[in-house]
Amino acid sequence: MDRPAPGGEDSALMSAALRTELKAIQATVEAELDRLLPPAEGDATRLREAMRYSTLGGGKRVRPALCLLSCAAAGGERSRALPAACALEMIHVYSLVHDDLPAMDDDDLRRGRPTCHKAYGEATGILVGDGLQALAFEVLAREYASDPPLGLDLVGLLAQAAGAAGMVGGQALDMAAPALADRSEAALEAIHAQKTGALLRAAVLMGARCAGTTAGSPRWASLDAYARAVGLAFQVADDILDCTATTEALGKTAGKDQAQDKLTYVALLGLEGARAKARSLEAAAGDALAAFGPEAAPLRQLAHFVVSRTA
Amino acid sequence: MDRPAPGGEDSALMSAALRTELKAIQATVEAELDRLLPPAEGDATRLREAMRYSTLGGGKRVRPALCLLSCAAAGGERSRALPAACALEMIHVYSLVHDDLPAMDDDDLRRGRPTCHKAYGEATGILVGDGLQALAFEVLAREYASDPPLGLDLVGLLAQAAGAAGMVGGQALDMAAPALADRSEAALEAIHAQKTGALLRAAVLMGARCAGTTAGSPRWASLDAYARAVGLAFQVADDILDCTATTEALGKTAGKDQAQDKLTYVALLGLEGARAKARSLEAAAGDALAAFGPEAAPLRQLAHFVVSRTA
Repeated sequence: MDRPAPGGEDSALMSAALRTELKAIQATVEAELDRLLPPAEGDATRLREAMRYSTLGGGKRVRPALCLLSCAAAGGERSRALPAACALEMIHVYSLVHDDLPAMDDDDLRRGRPTCHKAYGEATGILVGDGLQALAFEVLAREYASDPPLGLDLVGLLAQAAGAAGMVGGQALDMAAPALADRSEAALEAIHAQKTGALLRAAVLMGARCAGTTAGSPRWASLDAYARAVGLAFQVADDILDCTATTEALGKTAGKDQAQDKLTYVALLGLEGARAKARSLEAAAGDALAAFGPEAAPLRQLAHFVVSRTA
Repeated sequence: MDRPAPGGEDSALMSAALRTELKAIQATVEAELDRLLPPAEGDATRLREAMRYSTLGGGKRVRPALCLLSCAAAGGERSRALPAACALEMIHVYSLVHDDLPAMDDDDLRRGRPTCHKAYGEATGILVGDGLQALAFEVLAREYASDPPLGLDLVGLLAQAAGAAGMVGGQALDMAAPALADRSEAALEAIHAQKTGALLRAAVLMGARCAGTTAGSPRWASLDAYARAVGLAFQVADDILDCTATTEALGKTAGKDQAQDKLTYVALLGLEGARAKARSLEAAAGDALAAFGPEAAPLRQLAHFVVSRTA
């Protein structure tokens, strides 16, 4: 309540160290994605070009950042998690490309540019998403070939988060939500835990797994709690931004939630209520990392960035 | 030339043993898919119901059969390859669901029933495909968790075959083909090697891998050669069926290739030429298995079935 509303001030609030860190991560991930994507030449050039168009040239790379910083927080070498970070981003990008399709959210603008199907046609849009999903798993299989137990665990974490019990299921729930009788906070949380939460959680857990942390350990449980809080905070912030930010700042159409009568945290709690919710989730994310030392500082700052970002 | 044309006589030509075998495989795969698919209840019920609708209740299960019989031919226990066989079928079914979408081939009928998007709407059709692809990799990660080197190899083989260098790339090429200047047999073969060939090849190689055969061995090379010949034969037979079989027999709309001026083997070689091509590919498939004993007999018969099938 006594803090300025999100919008414009995140660069002041975010530590300079994290800003530098995030910029470095974005550059590293961009270069690695460029390397991992098939070149836009040879057979099916248009498809490959569209895959590159949708994946490269921008994006906050929040999932890669969560993955790399979680690996570091769990005591691992950040570079070990880079292919996993890129696989996560490929799944995220494919979901954006499919969600933007006319039969889904029907959006024309993404990252400040025409959406994939606007630029390349609807058939190519469908195939770009399909191809990126396959590529994510191909990358995991190839880049972790020297450590199959790690590689196969990563495949399992990513596939579960992406599928019908995760992201795809959440998108199906979200599409059906306007017709839902149950417009409670619990119903909304259930949707988002799947739609965006599952992949953000996978980012944190895959990073931890790359550091050798395995399911069932105390460290795993702490990072899992952090991930759940951050994932939900991310969505609350998204809902706030949809009604406070401009289309230009977002790089995608603003104000769509209200226009489509979507169930959002702002619709449910009001703007101030949603902001309070975001802050309490940020605090919960910090609490989850209580047992960690300074190696988890970037993760703590990232929780703050997620809540206070302006786009 | 002196053999009756494919159509109607396959049950007479196919050995009774293979018919029994295929029926048993179909039943086993159906039961396993039923177990692996999420139940149509709880969250996102409609999505889960549509995933089951598209996957269960029919289909020749050619890819699972290739996978299981290849495993046996390479000296393995057939049951070891069952999860891989189901993962292959999930990828195949997702590709059918997406290919049937209005922006792609725009088809209303599949396996004798309304296509997924006709029955459940276009948004659900997109999500069903996305969810089935994720499930295929989830199944591999979970069901081969006790043997990570095997599991990760299977993930790599399947992802490569499904992606932009395989099935998805082939579909993109196929959509662009009517506008292609190059209407040569080499151009057509390049499309099909990706569009249908890559996944059929993956079926054979994944089966072999489940038997402990690894890339680079002579056995692997023989099965690979078999798979390439059978994959192409399958597509030639498909082209023949599209213009000789009825919609009722196929369970999908017949005669679409000609209506859409698609580049097909029949368009290129004529009906008799296409039949001769299919027979020579069947012979090549048999030759590739020359070093194998009776354990490969079902694979040899399957090559014949693929060419002489009536639907």
